[in-house]
Amino acid sequence: MNTAREMGVLAKEASRGLASASPRAKYVFLQNMARLLNDRKKDILAANRKDIEEAESIGMDKPRLDRLTLTPAIIQDMHRACLHVADMPDPIGAMDRQWQQPNGILVGKMRIPLGVICMIYEARPNVTVDAAILCLKAGNAVILRGGSEALNSNRALAALLREALVSAGLPENAVQLVQSTDHAIVPELCKLDEYIDVIIPRGGEGLVRTVTEAATMPVLKHYKGVCHAFVDASADLSMALDIVYNGKVQRPGVCNALECLLVHEQVADMFLPMVAEKLGGAGVEFRADAASLPLLGEHARPQTSDDLGMEFHDLVLAVCVVRDLDEALAHIAKYNSNHTDVIVTNDYSNATRFVREADASMVGVNVSTRFNDGGQLGLGAEIGISTSKLHAYGPMGVTELTTTKFVVTGTGQVRD
Amino acid sequence: MNTAREMGVLAKEASRGLASASPRAKYVFLQNMARLLNDRKKDILAANRKDIEEAESIGMDKPRLDRLTLTPAIIQDMHRACLHVADMPDPIGAMDRQWQQPNGILVGKMRIPLGVICMIYEARPNVTVDAAILCLKAGNAVILRGGSEALNSNRALAALLREALVSAGLPENAVQLVQSTDHAIVPELCKLDEYIDVIIPRGGEGLVRTVTEAATMPVLKHYKGVCHAFVDASADLSMALDIVYNGKVQRPGVCNALECLLVHEQVADMFLPMVAEKLGGAGVEFRADAASLPLLGEHARPQTSDDLGMEFHDLVLAVCVVRDLDEALAHIAKYNSNHTDVIVTNDYSNATRFVREADASMVGVNVSTRFNDGGQLGLGAEIGISTSKLHAYGPMGVTELTTTKFVVTGTGQVRD
Repeated sequence: MNTAREMGVLAKEASRGLASASPRAKYVFLQNMARLLNDRKKDILAANRKDIEEAESIGMDKPRLDRLTLTPAIIQDMHRACLHVADMPDPIGAMDRQWQQPNGILVGKMRIPLGVICMIYEARPNVTVDAAILCLKAGNAVILRGGSEALNSNRALAALLREALVSAGLPENAVQLVQSTDHAIVPELCKLDEYIDVIIPRGGEGLVRTVTEAATMPVLKHYKGVCHAFVDASADLSMALDIVYNGKVQRPGVCNALECLLVHEQVADMFLPMVAEKLGGAGVEFRADAASLPLLGEHARPQTSDDLGMEFHDLVLAVCVVRDLDEALAHIAKYNSNHTDVIVTNDYSNATRFVREADASMVGVNVSTRFNDGGQLGLGAEIGISTSKLHAYGPMGVTELTTTKFVVTGTGQVRD
Repeated sequence: MNTAREMGVLAKEASRGLASASPRAKYVFLQNMARLLNDRKKDILAANRKDIEEAESIGMDKPRLDRLTLTPAIIQDMHRACLHVADMPDPIGAMDRQWQQPNGILVGKMRIPLGVICMIYEARPNVTVDAAILCLKAGNAVILRGGSEALNSNRALAALLREALVSAGLPENAVQLVQSTDHAIVPELCKLDEYIDVIIPRGGEGLVRTVTEAATMPVLKHYKGVCHAFVDASADLSMALDIVYNGKVQRPGVCNALECLLVHEQVADMFLPMVAEKLGGAGVEFRADAASLPLLGEHARPQTSDDLGMEFHDLVLAVCVVRDLDEALAHIAKYNSNHTDVIVTNDYSNATRFVREADASMVGVNVSTRFNDGGQLGLGAEIGISTSKLHAYGPMGVTELTTTKFVVTGTGQVRD
C-alpha cells in the first residue's frame, strides 16, 4: 500500500505521459472502460454486495444504503457516460485565441491539463467512474479517495479503470485509489501541493470545510444550494407557478432545488393562494413570514430565522413577501449561497438589474432553478457545481478541468 | 483602527456597490486619482521621506532603501498608469459567449468581479496604486497590506484612492489599507473566507508560503522564475545568441530573466564560444556542466547541483549540454518553476513538441523569455505572473481579476 506521498509522485509522473497523450489514446481508453463495465458487471455487483453486507451489519440507515448500492441500471449509466465522454471533443491542445503583437510575435492561449487532481468524495461508488473519466479526458492524472463504506466497490471500479488505461497504452498510475480507510490520510493529501494541482471535495459541509482548511493547493468546491425565486409584480403568474413548482417539487433533494420564494407585495394576494393549492397539494410545507402566512392556508406554519438561508433537501419552502426588487436583491445577498437565483418578471429593467446584481453561479430570468446543471446548460457531463468564484463558478465540465498556457512564437524577437 | 474582520465586512459591503457601478464612474475615479497624484505630489514625497528616515535610522540596506523610495518620476508613472487603466475597456457585464439550448433557453457567461481581493505585498509603495486601480477597474473591493516600512507612504496613497472614489460617487471602503504593523494580522486575514474572495501575496518565497499555508480562500501566487532556453541543433545560432543575451543581460533581476541555457550537443562546439564572448564580455559568469566548461573560457566555473533550478537574480547563467530534445524537456520538467521556457529551433516537429510538452505559464519558440509580461503579451497592466494553474496561469491582467457567472434567460421553461 503506497503512502500518500508515493501516490503523489506516481500521479505526477503519470500526468506527464497523459498530458501529451493523443486524443485517440484517450478515446480508446474510454471505449475500453465502457466494454469492461459490461463484461465485468457480475464482479462489480459482487464487490458492491460485500460493501452492502458490511454496511447492513453495522446498521447503516436506508438513505445511505441506497446511495451505496450499485444496480445493473447504474452500471449501464456509467457505461453510457464512458461512451458519451469518448465522443466529446478533446479539449487539450486547442488554441483558444491567438493574436499578433506589433513586434510580430504571435501570442496564443493553449488549453492544457491541470496536472494531478485529487477527488475526495463520500458514498456513491459510481462517482469513481464518473469523476475519473472526466479528469482523464482532460488529460489529468487522478487520485481518488472514496468513502470507506464503498471501498470494495471502488477497488473493483478503479481496477477496471487501470486495466482500460493500460490496454490503451496510457500510464496505469493515471488513476490511483487511496486504499487506506484511515481518516488521517485526508489532511496528508491536502499538504501535497508539490504533486497535486487541485483538490475537489464532494460531500457534506464538514468534509468540504475540513479540506478547505487543510489544503495548501487550490480547492474547487461546492457548499450548498440555497436557491431563490423572486416573483415580480409584472410576472406572468401562471408561468411563475410552473417555475416555482418545478423548482421545489420535481426533485427536492438536489442542490438546484428551490428553497425560498420571494413574492412582490402587489401580486402576493393573487399568487400565494395559487402556490398553496398547487404546491400544497403536492405535499409541500411552507415556512411563511407574517405577510404570506394568511395567504398560504393549511400547509403553512410561521417562519423562524432558521428557515432563511436553509437548504431543506425536502418538500419544504420558505416564503417571504417583499416590497420591491431592492428588497428581494438584499434578501438574496444576505441568504443565498451563490448557487442559483431566478426572477420571474416581464419588466425589462428589473430583469436586467437582477441579472447584473444577483450574485450566484447561475442567475435566471423566467426559467426554473433546476437548469443549473452541466447537462442542461450544454457543458456535457459535470464534476460538481462550484460556488466559489476562482477558476470555475457554476457547473464544472471537462473544460473547467483544464487551464491555458501562453504560447509565443516568433522569428528571433527580443525585448527592447 | 478596524480589526481584520471589520475590514472584511466593510469590504464585502463596498464590493456590492462597486459590482454594479457604471463604467463611467470607474473612469471618473481613475481620472480623479491621476489628478490627485499630480496635485498632492509634495504630500506623497513628504510621507515617503518619513519612511526613508525611519528606515535609515534602523540601517536598512541600499537595495531595500531604493525599493522604498518614491521619486517624482515614479509618481509620474503611477499617474500614467491611472490614465492608461481608465482608457482600457471595462471588462464587467460583457457576455463572453452565449448559446441556445434545444428547449429554447439562452445560456451566457457574463463577466463579473471576483468580489473582495486582499493584496499582501512587501516594499515598493507604488504597488499600492498599481494593484488597487486594476482591482477596482475589475469591480473588486480591495484590502491592502503593504510592508510596515512603507506605512506612511501607503497611508498617503490609500487616502488619495479613497478621496478619488468618493468624488466619483463610489464607496470609499472599496479601498482599505491595513494600518496594523503587527505580523499576526496576516494569518487573521487569511481566515476571512467569508468576506475575502481571493488573496494575492507579492513578495519573497517566505511570504508566499505563509499565506498559502494559512489561507482558506483561493490564493493567486507567483513563486519564482527559473527560465530556460534550449538551443536546438537546427537553431539559427545568431538568433539564438540574441535571445540568450537578451534573456540574461537586459534585466537580470526580474522573474522572466534567463537562468539556464541548454545547448544541443551538435552545436555546442560552435555556439558556446559565441556565448562566452558576447555574454562573458557583458560580465556574465557561467556555471558550466562538464561538457560546456571547456567551451566557455575564463568566465566559467564548474556547476554545482545548487546551480540548477536556481533563480540567480544576477549576471549568472547555468549552462548544460544535452543530447537531444528529450533530455532538454526532462531537464526542464525537473528544474523549471513553471514560469517561462523557450526553444530556439528551425525544426518544425521539435518546435511543436516543445510547445506541447514544456509545462510553463509561457512557452516560446524563437523569442526571448523576457516576453512573459502582461504588457508585452498585449494584456495591458498586470498584477503579477501566476505560476499555479488554477484560474490564471501566466500574467494576470484585469480579466484575471474577474470571473464569469451563467446567465440563463427563457420564456417559462422548466425541467422535464
